[in-house]
Amino acid sequence: MMGLSEKQNDHRPNTEGAPPLPHVRLADTDRLESFSDGVFAITITLLVSEIVRPEHEPGHLLEKLLAQWPNYVAFLASFFYIGVIWLNHRAVFARVRYCDRSLHLANLFSLLASALIPFPTAVLSTALQQGNPFDATVAVALYAAIGGVMCLSWLLLFHVLSIHSYLLEEHVDPAFFPKERHRAVLGVALYAAAGVIGWVYAPKLALMIFLALPIFYGITSEGLTETRVRILLRRATREPQSGRYGR
Amino acid sequence: MMGLSEKQNDHRPNTEGAPPLPHVRLADTDRLESFSDGVFAITITLLVSEIVRPEHEPGHLLEKLLAQWPNYVAFLASFFYIGVIWLNHRAVFARVRYCDRSLHLANLFSLLASALIPFPTAVLSTALQQGNPFDATVAVALYAAIGGVMCLSWLLLFHVLSIHSYLLEEHVDPAFFPKERHRAVLGVALYAAAGVIGWVYAPKLALMIFLALPIFYGITSEGLTETRVRILLRRATREPQSGRYGR
Amino acid sequence: MMGLSEKQNDHRPNTEGAPPLPHVRLADTDRLESFSDGVFAITITLLVSEIVRPEHEPGHLLEKLLAQWPNYVAFLASFFYIGVIWLNHRAVFARVRYCDRSLHLANLFSLLASALIPFPTAVLSTALQQGNPFDATVAVALYAAIGGVMCLSWLLLFHVLSIHSYLLEEHVDPAFFPKERHRAVLGVALYAAAGVIGWVYAPKLALMIFLALPIFYGITSEGLTETRVRILLRRATREPQSGRYGR
Amino acid sequence: MMGLSEKQNDHRPNTEGAPPLPHVRLADTDRLESFSDGVFAITITLLVSEIVRPEHEPGHLLEKLLAQWPNYVAFLASFFYIGVIWLNHRAVFARVRYCDRSLHLANLFSLLASALIPFPTAVLSTALQQGNPFDATVAVALYAAIGGVMCLSWLLLFHVLSIHSYLLEEHVDPAFFPKERHRAVLGVALYAAAGVIGWVYAPKLALMIFLALPIFYGITSEGLTETRVRILLRRATREPQSGRYGR
Repeated sequence: MMGLSEKQNDHRPNTEGAPPLPHVRLADTDRLESFSDGVFAITITLLVSEIVRPEHEPGHLLEKLLAQWPNYVAFLASFFYIGVIWLNHRAVFARVRYCDRSLHLANLFSLLASALIPFPTAVLSTALQQGNPFDATVAVALYAAIGGVMCLSWLLLFHVLSIHSYLLEEHVDPAFFPKERHRAVLGVALYAAAGVIGWVYAPKLALMIFLALPIFYGITSEGLTETRVRILLRRATREPQSGRYGR
Repeated sequence: MMGLSEKQNDHRPNTEGAPPLPHVRLADTDRLESFSDGVFAITITLLVSEIVRPEHEPGHLLEKLLAQWPNYVAFLASFFYIGVIWLNHRAVFARVRYCDRSLHLANLFSLLASALIPFPTAVLSTALQQGNPFDATVAVALYAAIGGVMCLSWLLLFHVLSIHSYLLEEHVDPAFFPKERHRAVLGVALYAAAGVIGWVYAPKLALMIFLALPIFYGITSEGLTETRVRILLRRATREPQSGRYGR
Repeated sequence: MMGLSEKQNDHRPNTEGAPPLPHVRLADTDRLESFSDGVFAITITLLVSEIVRPEHEPGHLLEKLLAQWPNYVAFLASFFYIGVIWLNHRAVFARVRYCDRSLHLANLFSLLASALIPFPTAVLSTALQQGNPFDATVAVALYAAIGGVMCLSWLLLFHVLSIHSYLLEEHVDPAFFPKERHRAVLGVALYAAAGVIGWVYAPKLALMIFLALPIFYGITSEGLTETRVRILLRRATREPQSGRYGR
Repeated sequence: MMGLSEKQNDHRPNTEGAPPLPHVRLADTDRLESFSDGVFAITITLLVSEIVRPEHEPGHLLEKLLAQWPNYVAFLASFFYIGVIWLNHRAVFARVRYCDRSLHLANLFSLLASALIPFPTAVLSTALQQGNPFDATVAVALYAAIGGVMCLSWLLLFHVLSIHSYLLEEHVDPAFFPKERHRAVLGVALYAAAGVIGWVYAPKLALMIFLALPIFYGITSEGLTETRVRILLRRATREPQSGRYGR
């Protein structure tokens, strides 16, 4: 597949008459995508291995299962968050035609941050269950820090795609990724605020910010611009197609 | 690859003369498929890590290996079930050409439920081995609950594909996925019944339902309609092809 | 990708004039391949997690690292064996164009057996290290049993491809997979013999069979027929190509 | 996908008039790439599972989190190193069109070495934390040994591609991989030197070599030749493309 597309899309600069240059090309995104899919798939699936084996005294399975509810919450929250990150990643790279080294490094940085998400989530759910207020504050600060780093990695990714617009698919508006940076900056700012609020005032207020951000990124996963026009367009595409099936 | 197919299949509504719209398209299913394959592959493979290391006194390896037979049963049952789910997933998405957000969310929901399957299977096999009747009842109820959620997730997936028929491949009968919902509703109903039967009457009857459902979904993995016509068609396709090889 | 190839290779029987049939096709092998690659990749990589953390007293790292040498042997042996299985799997499915249910089930069976290989390998390496003769005999028998099941699964796979020759690529010799069954039968027989020899006479003789079989399957991974003609053909293909690069 | 490309790229020697030969071809690299991507993705993601669960007394979460800082360093170092290895692997196989057995075996060898990297990294970080000088020396020697084996595996890979130049894409300079061997030889030599220096003189000097080598391989991931000409060419490709977007 790499073979097929790279061969046909070879777009080295036309160097007829120029001295023979070594074979250089901006690579396709396919291995970046399959590698990233692998990382996301493993991150999202390893979560369940945290909750598989509840050891218990005979006759106490039910209470044991009920007692580990924070594990279930952490599992669902992490699963949802990684799912949203994957949706965003997919939407970004559907607009990218070529990769260069800076895009690879930005992508590795965001994979690193994504793979870390289950770690602060597990720490936070355990701390909330045990009820020690200082631990809860520490866990909120840790979650805010990792969340902020993740938004920072997306800011870097959007920035690379803003200044290297020659990597994009042909029809992508060059203003798309510059605008997308606002989404990432908002995330960095809100996680920083949540960290401060959680540390100084109320951890519970920070938790509400933690909950709101993945939902916001889930809703806007196709980008700020396109989220607004989607409903309009889907109606337009549906009409000829439902006609195609004769209804 | 995503690059290649998305480029050729760009099907934005024809907007000549209209004001320039941002680049919007319904995405192909390929990254959804590779991400899902990753989740299924990890789920099915992590199962074996449960049974790798039997620690034992010198000379007692045999009895230790025999004593952990419920692990083997749970491994085989989970492996078979995840394999059947993968077959169904493959058969569904072979009929899907485009993805939208609702299909992505329904798919993430069914991946979540599938990744959970080893959890109630392990709990059930351990509870049956230890022989405490209350634990066995709890484990049956847990299995029924997760099984029911999984069928619910497939019901949602089939429903999304029923009402968003513009996502399907061109030649798919628009009545295919509406009919498929019956398979999922049957599963929800039977898991609910198994939960009640297991809780009130006999866990062993519930186990038989648990065993029967993956077999049913394995047999009908190509869909209710096509399972009926398959034999007919295979005969038709075999004739010209076996001729192609000169026999 | 699935989208692209399935669309172009739609080979439903020509039913012009016939009543409209539901959309049925024999599916491509691509998701089978990516799912199987995932299972092999996870199996081969999880092996290393067995040996990551040696806990030890300060100053005793070296002896601790040396003491767990059977883990290294088991790691290398399993890695090599799974690598050989992957090479065989790749060589088989390079000859397969379509999948049907029986091929899927045979493939799932061989994935199951492959994912199990690290289990008897770990048991065997531990038993040999601890030196209890009865444990060693049990471990040899376990390894022989799982190895035999794995060859059985390949026999089934080759058998399905022998009787469903309409699944093969156009240019594959229909006699190829019938002959391949001999390789699998040989494996079943040798593992059975090794189990008996190890149980009754000498575990060390069984170990030599265990060592020889992956090497045999590695050498013949392209099939019995083609292993013989490979050198001949490579010479033929090399000539025009090395000329293409002007040497 | 494999199906599609293999079919179109069938390049068996033209044997018209010759006796019918069995179907032999040099296989495409796609399954090698997806399998390798899986191994890299799992290796890089499993690292985080090392640091997920810090168990602690109530109120001592912060000090527990701070105390496991060597885990974070090991995580970041391994993540960065595996990321660099993936970038190198991607750059190599973007230049490879076909695989033969020797390339498969060399690739499996380098996957083996890559999957091992987290092991010496974890041992080294723990040894440095515990402060026993003999353990630190042992850990440095282990790291140097595994690092050297990894460079050796790349030397083998580059060597196979040097002598089997018929496996390369058409436009790749036949002198590219012979030159690349210098990068790998440098790595083997430096890891050997670091091992000796760390064992005889100062472990800290060895650590600086360990740190410098992944950075060197990251910078030169596109190959020694192309790293030099990259800036030149990117400027050339950017011009027509930025014009394509009308800026």
